[in-house]
Amino acid sequence: MTIYYNVLVIGGGLIGSSMARAIKSKSLAERIYIADTSPEACGVLRTLDIADGVSEDFNDFIGKVDLVILATPPSVMKTIGASVVKAMKTGAVLTDVGSIKLDVAKYFETFMRSDISFIPGHPIAGTENSGPAAGFAELFQDRWCILTPDEEVDEAEVKRLSDLWEAMGSQVALMDAARHDIVLATTSHVPHLIAYTLVGTAIDMETVTRNDVVKYSAGGFRDFTRIAASDPQMWRDVFLQNKEGVLEVVDRFIEDLSALKRAIRWDDGETLMKHFSKTRDIRRHIVDAGQDTDKADFGRES
Amino acid sequence: MTIYYNVLVIGGGLIGSSMARAIKSKSLAERIYIADTSPEACGVLRTLDIADGVSEDFNDFIGKVDLVILATPPSVMKTIGASVVKAMKTGAVLTDVGSIKLDVAKYFETFMRSDISFIPGHPIAGTENSGPAAGFAELFQDRWCILTPDEEVDEAEVKRLSDLWEAMGSQVALMDAARHDIVLATTSHVPHLIAYTLVGTAIDMETVTRNDVVKYSAGGFRDFTRIAASDPQMWRDVFLQNKEGVLEVVDRFIEDLSALKRAIRWDDGETLMKHFSKTRDIRRHIVDAGQDTDKADFGRES
Repeated sequence: MTIYYNVLVIGGGLIGSSMARAIKSKSLAERIYIADTSPEACGVLRTLDIADGVSEDFNDFIGKVDLVILATPPSVMKTIGASVVKAMKTGAVLTDVGSIKLDVAKYFETFMRSDISFIPGHPIAGTENSGPAAGFAELFQDRWCILTPDEEVDEAEVKRLSDLWEAMGSQVALMDAARHDIVLATTSHVPHLIAYTLVGTAIDMETVTRNDVVKYSAGGFRDFTRIAASDPQMWRDVFLQNKEGVLEVVDRFIEDLSALKRAIRWDDGETLMKHFSKTRDIRRHIVDAGQDTDKADFGRES
Repeated sequence: MTIYYNVLVIGGGLIGSSMARAIKSKSLAERIYIADTSPEACGVLRTLDIADGVSEDFNDFIGKVDLVILATPPSVMKTIGASVVKAMKTGAVLTDVGSIKLDVAKYFETFMRSDISFIPGHPIAGTENSGPAAGFAELFQDRWCILTPDEEVDEAEVKRLSDLWEAMGSQVALMDAARHDIVLATTSHVPHLIAYTLVGTAIDMETVTRNDVVKYSAGGFRDFTRIAASDPQMWRDVFLQNKEGVLEVVDRFIEDLSALKRAIRWDDGETLMKHFSKTRDIRRHIVDAGQDTDKADFGRES
């Protein structure tokens, strides 16, 4: 089912290459092109044979495509945004896959053209691995994709982009950029910041060796290391660009942690028990909603 | 290979029932008995057919066994400890599987007998599920078990208990109780406290609905909910009994989180980048040590 004629993905990493794989394997476009400034990444992408053309320069393709997907780290989107917009053909659609929406959208407003449609997007999918070889076509299956178009964007174009995501296996939600950013600060950005912090704290403990941390990581720690193995550059950009949302949720978290700390210090078992029972319920809802399995993953095979 | 003649597991939950399964399936004892004060648990345990005897009263078996394994929540160990020790036969060995060692060991000293050997233990294994039905014989495979015997304990008995753990698939480490508690505060207790806290923070955000949290949990949050689904009573006991270790590590964590918060507030991308790159290395070591797989689990099937 062809949804777009020609599609260009800029940035052939985990997300971009997975989209190219999904689009190609399901024939969702006549032609799919990938541009990536890294010669190494282009080499890998050519070997993978998941696109009809691969180049280090997006200008080789951009004039002829109906859909441009920005799949670079957020800071790079800002660097190249103006030249991308300038080079697009009339009537084309621009989208992205970034984890923050408000900051980038505001920046893009300064050079947006009225003859193209800008529909920011964010697939809530990924793995702790990065790079073109880490991608796979099923990455978006049963995950949500959030689109945050302005009200003036053509509804038919929003529908067409939604169709693309649904054809890749996702469910689509529309919301405004500010709401997206606080929801994602809660469900993604702050969890990553906390995981990065805790892994650093453990490494720095003088009384606990790195060897201890590795050997006894099955007690909970290893799950944090998996999250803290995610792409450093992307996450630096996310925290800086969703500063307000992240700081708000982190402050709430520190307040709550201080309250539990106090309960521990004062032997207040009742407060702990009440809190720990409450958090168990939400797990069931997540499994019921198909967003995780109920397989006992702590006992995972090694 | 029979290592003990008669073994009694007190507490037939996730860990206790998994030990019984492993001991029975590998014939590591002539007879394996389970005592659990819950009639429901006893019913399940009888159906599972993983023991040669199941009772609500440990006194039905304790007089005839060579090894007693305390596998109850830590607070229950304290409640029943004195009567367990009193009822054991001369020459028998007492061990436990609790997540904190110093507090319980100190308490047990007050009524310990010189004619039995007390060898505290802690298998670094588990899942987010609890109860007798959640257990399985392979739970300890390739995991570490820490034993923290006092110096006066008979070395031959320490060796025999180590043999049991190794026969169940584990590697055994000996260390003193105080060191165990700070290592585990870092690799297990504080990660759990943080997961419980973050899940609570997300539930309480007024601007983010429970539905949002569930739908968009694949961005990192769902891994925290898995940890925060662990047994509330056990974790309450752990935090209260390893108070000193937990508070020390939590304070370090809050310091480190505040430093990263400050870097975000002041747009200090370099500090973030440096920190995030450092934490990526430890992940590789954990995978290399066989304590986790390198399967891209964020993209797990739903």
